[in-house]
Amino acid sequence: MPTISQRGVQMPSSPIRKLVPFAEAAKKRGVKVYHLNIGQPDIETPKPVLDAVRHSDFKILEYSHSAGNESYRRKLVEYYSRFNVSLNHNQIIVTTGGSEAIVFAFMACLDPGDEVIVPEPFYANYNGFAVEAEVKIKTITANIETGFALPAMEAFEAAITPRTKAILICNPNNPTGYLYSKEEMEVLKQLCLKHNLFLFSDEAYREFCYAGEHFSAMNLEGMDDNVILMDTISKRYSACGGRIGAFVTKNQVVLDAAMKFAQARLSPPSFAQIAGEAAVDLPLDYFDGIKAEYQSRRDVLVEGLNKIPGVFCPNPGGAFYAMASLPIDDSDKFCQWMLESFEYEKQTVMMSPATGFYATPGLGKKEVRLAYVLNRDDIRHAIVCLEKALEVYPGRTSK
Amino acid sequence: MPTISQRGVQMPSSPIRKLVPFAEAAKKRGVKVYHLNIGQPDIETPKPVLDAVRHSDFKILEYSHSAGNESYRRKLVEYYSRFNVSLNHNQIIVTTGGSEAIVFAFMACLDPGDEVIVPEPFYANYNGFAVEAEVKIKTITANIETGFALPAMEAFEAAITPRTKAILICNPNNPTGYLYSKEEMEVLKQLCLKHNLFLFSDEAYREFCYAGEHFSAMNLEGMDDNVILMDTISKRYSACGGRIGAFVTKNQVVLDAAMKFAQARLSPPSFAQIAGEAAVDLPLDYFDGIKAEYQSRRDVLVEGLNKIPGVFCPNPGGAFYAMASLPIDDSDKFCQWMLESFEYEKQTVMMSPATGFYATPGLGKKEVRLAYVLNRDDIRHAIVCLEKALEVYPGRTSK
Repeated sequence: MPTISQRGVQMPSSPIRKLVPFAEAAKKRGVKVYHLNIGQPDIETPKPVLDAVRHSDFKILEYSHSAGNESYRRKLVEYYSRFNVSLNHNQIIVTTGGSEAIVFAFMACLDPGDEVIVPEPFYANYNGFAVEAEVKIKTITANIETGFALPAMEAFEAAITPRTKAILICNPNNPTGYLYSKEEMEVLKQLCLKHNLFLFSDEAYREFCYAGEHFSAMNLEGMDDNVILMDTISKRYSACGGRIGAFVTKNQVVLDAAMKFAQARLSPPSFAQIAGEAAVDLPLDYFDGIKAEYQSRRDVLVEGLNKIPGVFCPNPGGAFYAMASLPIDDSDKFCQWMLESFEYEKQTVMMSPATGFYATPGLGKKEVRLAYVLNRDDIRHAIVCLEKALEVYPGRTSK
Repeated sequence: MPTISQRGVQMPSSPIRKLVPFAEAAKKRGVKVYHLNIGQPDIETPKPVLDAVRHSDFKILEYSHSAGNESYRRKLVEYYSRFNVSLNHNQIIVTTGGSEAIVFAFMACLDPGDEVIVPEPFYANYNGFAVEAEVKIKTITANIETGFALPAMEAFEAAITPRTKAILICNPNNPTGYLYSKEEMEVLKQLCLKHNLFLFSDEAYREFCYAGEHFSAMNLEGMDDNVILMDTISKRYSACGGRIGAFVTKNQVVLDAAMKFAQARLSPPSFAQIAGEAAVDLPLDYFDGIKAEYQSRRDVLVEGLNKIPGVFCPNPGGAFYAMASLPIDDSDKFCQWMLESFEYEKQTVMMSPATGFYATPGLGKKEVRLAYVLNRDDIRHAIVCLEKALEVYPGRTSK
């Protein structure tokens, strides 16, 4: 029997999805599971977005342009202009989800063995894309005490080697919810210009900022050749299944290289491009309602968590995630135990152990990530469950 | 300015799409261009397939399972059973187009520097996926004189090195249209078992066979651990823009590895999975009509081409491509000249230079690939254009 690749061996399993069998078993026992583990919002996809697909009347489901339909890219130019990002439609490649935008950036900018610096904790799937591209992720650690603010410039400087080609951030951040300030973005700019690095900026949650305005990497002056924006409509319009994202840069050489990767896979999905194009025409106040909804969920979650003895949860400034430290021995064990061995009034909670978001071994063992993608009542029930669970969990620690 | 990767430099441009600007310029001059260059059929997507999406009534466009919706995978089990391929739904990973199935196979089975043997001419985008995976494509040459039959076993043996991990075929073949016989498939089986190789089988055109029955690699006995089927609904149902394919194998270790790559990119597109699922329920005689249509187009094309002095086109047994050798100096030059400098009654033809389908330098310079994706009248007009063009082309050769 032929053996699989080392790459196939090294490829990490999804730290979020590995608990799924335990959740399924709990449900089979009749236990209600509150899913705070994954960024799948319960918010409905806007009807005009789905209707655009349902009312489409083409006869052939054709390949689109490899960079995406020109009509959609022109709409995206309009979308980005609302954030003072001035583009032309040829500076946008429509991708298959934000995931593909990350792969294109890694592939087009980094060679095997090259390094990208990422503040940890970070979105776990960056690890997978790094394995695919044979790229090394080097982390510098952000701390829960500061709410996961950007680590100091010196920490970045210390991590830079001759193989460092890029810094990757997610802003606002998944998994921490931290919203980088303009000043922090300026620090990244200084670093990139001084060391001739790309800045990969994953801005999937741009619209969901509660602690001030979002400052896009695309708004950094003098960084046109350095910045690559990785974007997606998944969270913005509750359209995760569409698999539509965008790779955006003003660096023409990078664009030309990324286009070759885009051509190899022919085109992004046609149906969801129609959805994405319609989404840009949603009333501008669409996000006011969504943002208010997420913010009220955040408030319920963070306030509730901080009332539980031994729990600390910094208030996230954006996205729809919160990281909390718990009085436990091991978050992997605890999250599994919650699904396997615990229930309160026939209910339990599924969370993501934070260990999967850190590269440094041992970090995140007391932390979990909670996605506030459920309504407030469900979140309140989930908090009660968590509090009861912490009272009886055998691996409870004093703090 | 940071530099792009060597991989980004090496990534090949699409040999098919590089002529697009010349075609666009021709159209701007008012010239009608017959597109025989690309496998985008003019056949309508079956209405029930599109209607399934249009009549869907979900409220949230959610992520699907990373392996695709279970209901769709169960339908695919039914689909494959029609070809005496017995599977369970966990042996199928729904992919984003056939392209992603190829990438998963390369990533999960081959490490950087590993070699995969491919008969040339071959589907040009395999080159791109090989660059992404840092894998080496080694070719053995099939000849137009034999209609591009499988090269002799000895040719494969001579190409095998300690780094060889797989053989990749496309059956029926793009770009040659050649349909591999059961006997040729048995030769591949012997090779794979003897040298412990994977057999990657791209069967995108399974339903379009005119010279006998299709024999799937999945039907090779004793090869369960070796065979990986790469599939797609793009051509089968004229649904190229859906971006839905499949990665199929009975090798559990390979499946587990591929699932990790599938999890990293979260899920395949949701809308088109609905379309794919509905497609399996099309009446079984759906393909009779489509196949008859393609076969009649093939007959018109091949007969017409072989009547042109100096032109030779072997009769393809499947898919919807034909390779023809022309009395010309250089197919790249000729195809560009057709768009840039030639017109007959305000019409011209776009074809793919065969050089892009060969890895061996110099091969394919007299050959072009023609996709018979247009109706018979259009094909007849295109043949007249081509004949007139060959009469006046400055680089014409005697044969």
